[in-house]
Amino acid sequence: MSTESPYAIGEIPLVDHHVHGATAHDLSRTEFEELITESNRPVPGWMTQFDSQVGFAILRHCAPVLGLDPHPDPETYLARRTELGAEEVNRRLLAASGIGHFLVETGYRGDEILDPARMAAVAGRPADEVVRLEAVAERVVTEGTDAAGFAARFEAALWERSRAARGLKTIVAYRHGLDLDPARPAPAEVTQAAGRWLREAERTGTVRVDDPVLLRHLIWTGIDRGLPLQFHIGYGDPDVDLHRSDPLLLRGLIELAEPSGVPLLLLHCYPFHRNAGFLAQVYPNVYFDVGLGVNYTGARSVAVVAESLELAPFAKILFSSDAWGPAELHHLGALLWRRAMTRVLAGFVADGEWSEKQAARVAAMVGAENARRVYGLGESA
Amino acid sequence: MSTESPYAIGEIPLVDHHVHGATAHDLSRTEFEELITESNRPVPGWMTQFDSQVGFAILRHCAPVLGLDPHPDPETYLARRTELGAEEVNRRLLAASGIGHFLVETGYRGDEILDPARMAAVAGRPADEVVRLEAVAERVVTEGTDAAGFAARFEAALWERSRAARGLKTIVAYRHGLDLDPARPAPAEVTQAAGRWLREAERTGTVRVDDPVLLRHLIWTGIDRGLPLQFHIGYGDPDVDLHRSDPLLLRGLIELAEPSGVPLLLLHCYPFHRNAGFLAQVYPNVYFDVGLGVNYTGARSVAVVAESLELAPFAKILFSSDAWGPAELHHLGALLWRRAMTRVLAGFVADGEWSEKQAARVAAMVGAENARRVYGLGESA
Amino acid sequence: MSTESPYAIGEIPLVDHHVHGATAHDLSRTEFEELITESNRPVPGWMTQFDSQVGFAILRHCAPVLGLDPHPDPETYLARRTELGAEEVNRRLLAASGIGHFLVETGYRGDEILDPARMAAVAGRPADEVVRLEAVAERVVTEGTDAAGFAARFEAALWERSRAARGLKTIVAYRHGLDLDPARPAPAEVTQAAGRWLREAERTGTVRVDDPVLLRHLIWTGIDRGLPLQFHIGYGDPDVDLHRSDPLLLRGLIELAEPSGVPLLLLHCYPFHRNAGFLAQVYPNVYFDVGLGVNYTGARSVAVVAESLELAPFAKILFSSDAWGPAELHHLGALLWRRAMTRVLAGFVADGEWSEKQAARVAAMVGAENARRVYGLGESA
Repeated sequence: MSTESPYAIGEIPLVDHHVHGATAHDLSRTEFEELITESNRPVPGWMTQFDSQVGFAILRHCAPVLGLDPHPDPETYLARRTELGAEEVNRRLLAASGIGHFLVETGYRGDEILDPARMAAVAGRPADEVVRLEAVAERVVTEGTDAAGFAARFEAALWERSRAARGLKTIVAYRHGLDLDPARPAPAEVTQAAGRWLREAERTGTVRVDDPVLLRHLIWTGIDRGLPLQFHIGYGDPDVDLHRSDPLLLRGLIELAEPSGVPLLLLHCYPFHRNAGFLAQVYPNVYFDVGLGVNYTGARSVAVVAESLELAPFAKILFSSDAWGPAELHHLGALLWRRAMTRVLAGFVADGEWSEKQAARVAAMVGAENARRVYGLGESA
Repeated sequence: MSTESPYAIGEIPLVDHHVHGATAHDLSRTEFEELITESNRPVPGWMTQFDSQVGFAILRHCAPVLGLDPHPDPETYLARRTELGAEEVNRRLLAASGIGHFLVETGYRGDEILDPARMAAVAGRPADEVVRLEAVAERVVTEGTDAAGFAARFEAALWERSRAARGLKTIVAYRHGLDLDPARPAPAEVTQAAGRWLREAERTGTVRVDDPVLLRHLIWTGIDRGLPLQFHIGYGDPDVDLHRSDPLLLRGLIELAEPSGVPLLLLHCYPFHRNAGFLAQVYPNVYFDVGLGVNYTGARSVAVVAESLELAPFAKILFSSDAWGPAELHHLGALLWRRAMTRVLAGFVADGEWSEKQAARVAAMVGAENARRVYGLGESA
Repeated sequence: MSTESPYAIGEIPLVDHHVHGATAHDLSRTEFEELITESNRPVPGWMTQFDSQVGFAILRHCAPVLGLDPHPDPETYLARRTELGAEEVNRRLLAASGIGHFLVETGYRGDEILDPARMAAVAGRPADEVVRLEAVAERVVTEGTDAAGFAARFEAALWERSRAARGLKTIVAYRHGLDLDPARPAPAEVTQAAGRWLREAERTGTVRVDDPVLLRHLIWTGIDRGLPLQFHIGYGDPDVDLHRSDPLLLRGLIELAEPSGVPLLLLHCYPFHRNAGFLAQVYPNVYFDVGLGVNYTGARSVAVVAESLELAPFAKILFSSDAWGPAELHHLGALLWRRAMTRVLAGFVADGEWSEKQAARVAAMVGAENARRVYGLGESA
């Protein structure tokens, strides 16, 4: 593999520090197309999601893993996928990704996808859990609490739920936006807000935390818990108001959280990844990745990865796929990252700016070592 | 042309879905320089607008169309232009652009430039109209209305004015900013706002709609009209507050307009084109182009076009020149787009990411087919 | 040098229009690492600031100037630095930078670094001063004033302090953010605000101007002074709220200042440099550079420089290093800019977009001539 893989980037046992499970069941064309976009709308009849960077990347890179030539038409690809069956497709795509360790975030439609244990079984590599704060809080309400008891019950549930977890995650970007008061709310405020939430849940039959006081309480309780804390930033599905998802809005919280020593991990960040790089340079507690954006920019992911290698010290950049559902996304997350890093670093070396040794070292740091250090994963197997 | 034009990009009969007329008269150096910048200030004596990307692109690419070698000095170029005369210059530059269909927006200083019929005559290709909402509303006031009658008169005027139009356009970005309440205003609010406007017009002698209630009313009446609706976004002349022209600010309106099925076309978008690509991915009713930014970034337009090919499905990206005035801008809009697409797509193919067939298909979609579908132009001649 | 330096970019006697002094004393490893980042936090034990773009650039480009092979390890580099001593290191790095004229901003920890006269002596090239408005105001308060006398004393001090200066500088971005009322405050407001400031200085023992009324007063007094006025924009240390440092926020001030004819120079601008390019196109009084961002993006500075060559006329773009402290930063500012310009312009020429003559002319404009014109430096020696 040496000619294919300068600086041994192809051999790095990646730590995918933010990923979700693969779907266990076979997918219809409609289901598949709806899972290869961040849109949550039906695909209009006059287009196909295969006509996109991620669609072309699937046809180019996943087809050979399923035994087809590159660039088949979508029908041929999906027919082959069905022929092999979801289990074999998952096995092939996950194994070929070369991912060495999965940190699986389980808070989003977790019952439709493989849980960490099954991910580990299919991929043949360890998989640990990252726990979503909002999901824990919503379960506390679903299982029954009063307003005054909410804070204590949430704390107990979070400690219990995260006993073996490697990290926590917040989706405050989805539920409110990052433009929120960064201060830890007072207990009385939390109780009041919990009361409002319980009455609303009663009235609507829906348990969804979006009150900024409660979201702040979740985050601060998460910081108390002491595990690395992931933030959804930037690009995602249309539930997110992208205008309010710029990581620069987190400045106040970052500074307040700094004495805790808890690592804050900014996920995805596209199209604000340069802003994330700034934060990662100036604040010791900030890290970031360009996860989701790599998959969805496909042939253009080289540019996105290049832009992530500007201000941030190399010890502060991580790899993730943020894949959810089709194992194509897990596979591409790793493959496109490796290709992008290879091209970008080979460019630095060819330009006479970096040494080959530096390129190999930085790739290993970003691909695995930084995550191993932050999440305490020990040495690679 | 095959060696010059991989993927037949040179032969695509482009649909320029947002363009203005060419100037019919000869231009002095001062006039010419003031028309090749988005600045509306006089050109300072210590500089020339030819010392810019668009200036260099004119000297490089338009000079040969006028029978000169590339890169003449500005004096030589303008002398040749004068020698040929505006009519011949227009004829040559428009014909050589290879644009197959013009959608001409007539709302800005329309009496100084060719109207759609004359554009069609000079270029020898069909030209249809796009009607500017604000211009229609201002004419209603100029021709006389009372506040209570404004809404009905505007509706009648818009329907009449757009009988043969292919689309509508709003410049709410110029008149207020995109950060406005997205809701359709109530009739009483519209009447009140119309009253304020009429009194102000009376007092100032100027008829200019910039009240956010009225601007929202125009947009919603435009949506009722049912034609594709273009939005000025981002880069433009200094009348625009660029900080309030980020397309992400349109999120609320996009969601409210979604049930109407009206296509919303985000124009130019520079430097927010990645944000536009996000909106075009997640919302079925959103499309975008990087029109104006291609001309004004000249040799750098390859990068801008590349950045436009990230998140959006390829069925949601269009071509436009947004040229106004000198036919150099119409010519360059097409030429620079073809060059940029050729380079970007050839890069994807050379990298082994796309097939040649995919490259040819996407170029044809973005250059013509998407616009034909959205505006109902039928098959290309 | 001709094969190394197409378009004679290597030979341009650069005007570094915004720079600070070099440190005169030897630096420990800790001190050195803390000076090659914009972070003002201690370097965490698990990382080194050498593992960054600027760190790699130092090892690559400064090592040979100190007589080492490129890419030594940090220990070797710093040992050699100590062996040579600060004076020799400064002399070598400044001379090899080929900078022809320094405009030295003296307002930040000026007692720790070389002043303009000593910079000129070490580098063997002229060095003039740029005076920081906020530093002058703070000295007025330190030296004693009452509220009613503040405005007059500040005016007198500014005129006195800037008698031989080439320009002024404001750090309103650090002290408040660029989102401030652009209007000149009334005298009574200034007196009131000065009173508040004096009482606060009395109470806290700290003299730091951050009241928006006073900051506006400083800026408008600076405009009255009539020298070119530099604005810190965008990227800097974590004192800056980057979210409030977008140059687009200056639109109101730019328009109000336009009649004065005072050139406004937007410094650094990363990651908002495209926004700065827009302002420089549409407003005759706006100029910009990408100074600080070039050093800190190292191997990626080619991309940053390329992005700065989009909308702005070439007469409106300047060069600066914004170096402070280690002379490595002065050296790299020049070297990386020359390399980036060479690559970007060679790309335009190779693509057939620009002539070689155009490339040489634009490089000379951006590197020196524009600054000579704006600051009235006369012809290059």
